[in-house]
Amino acid sequence: MSKIVPNNKGVCAAEGFYADGIAIGLKREGQKDIAFIYSDTLCEVASVFTTNKMTAAPIRHFRALGKFKTNFVLINSKNANAMTGPEGIEDICEVLEGMKKKFPQIENPVMSSTGVIGVRLPKQKILEGACGFDLSKKEPASASAAIMTTDTFSKSIAFDVECESGSFSIGAMAKGAGMINPAMATMLCFITTDADVEAAMMQEILNELTKTTFNAISVDGDTSTNDTLLLLSNRKSGVFDKELFTEGLRRVMHFLALEMVRDGEGATKLVEYVVTGAKDAREAEIAAKALSDSLLVKTALFGEDPNWGRIASTIGASGIACDEATLSVSFNDLCVYEKGKLHFDAAMEEKAAKVMKLPEFTIFCDIGLGEGEFTAYGCDLGYEYVKINADYRT
Amino acid sequence: MSKIVPNNKGVCAAEGFYADGIAIGLKREGQKDIAFIYSDTLCEVASVFTTNKMTAAPIRHFRALGKFKTNFVLINSKNANAMTGPEGIEDICEVLEGMKKKFPQIENPVMSSTGVIGVRLPKQKILEGACGFDLSKKEPASASAAIMTTDTFSKSIAFDVECESGSFSIGAMAKGAGMINPAMATMLCFITTDADVEAAMMQEILNELTKTTFNAISVDGDTSTNDTLLLLSNRKSGVFDKELFTEGLRRVMHFLALEMVRDGEGATKLVEYVVTGAKDAREAEIAAKALSDSLLVKTALFGEDPNWGRIASTIGASGIACDEATLSVSFNDLCVYEKGKLHFDAAMEEKAAKVMKLPEFTIFCDIGLGEGEFTAYGCDLGYEYVKINADYRT
Repeated sequence: MSKIVPNNKGVCAAEGFYADGIAIGLKREGQKDIAFIYSDTLCEVASVFTTNKMTAAPIRHFRALGKFKTNFVLINSKNANAMTGPEGIEDICEVLEGMKKKFPQIENPVMSSTGVIGVRLPKQKILEGACGFDLSKKEPASASAAIMTTDTFSKSIAFDVECESGSFSIGAMAKGAGMINPAMATMLCFITTDADVEAAMMQEILNELTKTTFNAISVDGDTSTNDTLLLLSNRKSGVFDKELFTEGLRRVMHFLALEMVRDGEGATKLVEYVVTGAKDAREAEIAAKALSDSLLVKTALFGEDPNWGRIASTIGASGIACDEATLSVSFNDLCVYEKGKLHFDAAMEEKAAKVMKLPEFTIFCDIGLGEGEFTAYGCDLGYEYVKINADYRT
Repeated sequence: MSKIVPNNKGVCAAEGFYADGIAIGLKREGQKDIAFIYSDTLCEVASVFTTNKMTAAPIRHFRALGKFKTNFVLINSKNANAMTGPEGIEDICEVLEGMKKKFPQIENPVMSSTGVIGVRLPKQKILEGACGFDLSKKEPASASAAIMTTDTFSKSIAFDVECESGSFSIGAMAKGAGMINPAMATMLCFITTDADVEAAMMQEILNELTKTTFNAISVDGDTSTNDTLLLLSNRKSGVFDKELFTEGLRRVMHFLALEMVRDGEGATKLVEYVVTGAKDAREAEIAAKALSDSLLVKTALFGEDPNWGRIASTIGASGIACDEATLSVSFNDLCVYEKGKLHFDAAMEEKAAKVMKLPEFTIFCDIGLGEGEFTAYGCDLGYEYVKINADYRT
């Protein structure tokens, strides 16, 4: 019988993958700030990047490589290397050339950055620091801590996948808490696997799963310059089962996407928006994302106010086909508005307010017109979000 | 010589218009909560309404009238009469029938509402209260106070327009502070004039001016169920000059649109986003509105942080054609980023921080690719916005 079993080995779960994070003084007070992922054999690569036109240098460097295999990813926090022009790419090349000199086993290394936009990369500091890496380390917790920015907890997950022909593993780490948007997010996510899968198939599966995971979450509706999702397979297990690999990868991506929303800057709640009955799937997606993006809905969630009128208004404003006579809205299993019938009295308000106090719950909106469905994930927006983003650079 | 001269008569500035606001207990502590506008002769009517599909009952009632003339508008705050089904329209008809019985001079009255969504109109209370109106009153300040919701100040403006053939006046009052969005706003705006202008021409001018005034402002990117802009002309002056009328009306609408942003919920700053050099006007509009809508830009403004990287990133995320090598960004006359050149040092940061402390300033973004231009208006977003919207219904 096939099984998908979680373990705590994070990005080092798959055979042949190594990772660590160290402190080199980019962050304050000795916090870890650079990390690496290394595989002892070359990896197939699949990737998804930001749709932001002001693409950061690491992504432009990566794309310039074309179709390639790699065994090394260097990641730094505190500096996004975005809006840094051609010099931003030169800085990356200089750092990675230095790494290859220090570690001759590295082939086609790539870099990933997150942090402040519009400041040149501290390349000397990063190169000198990265020369202190020990590539034989398997310290997934240190690596995931090093890539955090405004994250309040580190994010990693891994599964062993057992299928008829043997087993393989999928492990991952991610960062992201703000600038999280349905069209990707200010997120970095690195997934490693020893499944025996080629780049083209990985890419196809990755694209499909991204739609319902990382592209279905929202913290503040902003799309960053650096969003990166990398999937590396060194194929060491010699084992592959498409269905189980897809399901394992889906669980990894779904878990990490929700972790980002849970850690949404200042967020106190994770809310699932299930839109059904839209004219088609695309309209359901528009409505669900409009809800998870709406400031008025987010602040009502923060105030634990079962203000279903704002939910109806947001759906109406989203531009999809809808009608107050066919719409229904529920908080978990409590229907507060049903096909034009106002039955939101004091007793129901009290019950609804109880649901709103939960740390995680679901808002169901049935448009009542068709078969289109989509689920989006969002959080509330409170004082802490303002504080974090008003003071970000200080 | 023609002149456009402001006066303080608000919505009663034009000959033959009367208005007042009174308290009937919808708001707390004896605050004014219903208002009327009355003209002693029938008016031509032009209007712009919300694009929200969950259109409130007053707007559906208005639209059902088709092409009509009126001499009476009744306005209530505290209840939006939205998501109230066919009963919402019946409630309006009942109130307006009652008004016609009490005041036989009223013809084709209309109603406008603002407040909480999804609660039946307190029709008996409103009808009984509105029977206390004195239609001979000219109290524009009372009327504009009565239509406020989360507004912290009332909004009105008027101009006398002198042209070769004589003179006419344009007066207005408005409400709006939150749910303010480029696609109209949670706003009500009533403009009265005695210019000798027909409905069709008024409508044409109103549509054109709305694009660069009420549709160019943003507080939180939400579009309400009740947005209404009404323009009434009783033609009493017998005078009309299209160019001067358009300019007078533009000043009225521009002033009131900016007043709404100045009064944006919790806002401390009014920021003008001037986007130039876009591929075309539509792309300039997309970029300018993306900036005025971005939470990350808004919170940076609140923190008085000259974080131009977020501005660049927001333009990049907006989907328009752009390139970091051609983009330039200025705060007032201080250029912080010019065509790919990073010259944002400590001295410049200090100067930029001074601009950010101003209550009103301009952010210029030149895309550097074409001739497209658009100007949008927005505000910052701080703790007060969260407080107001988390606690709205309590």
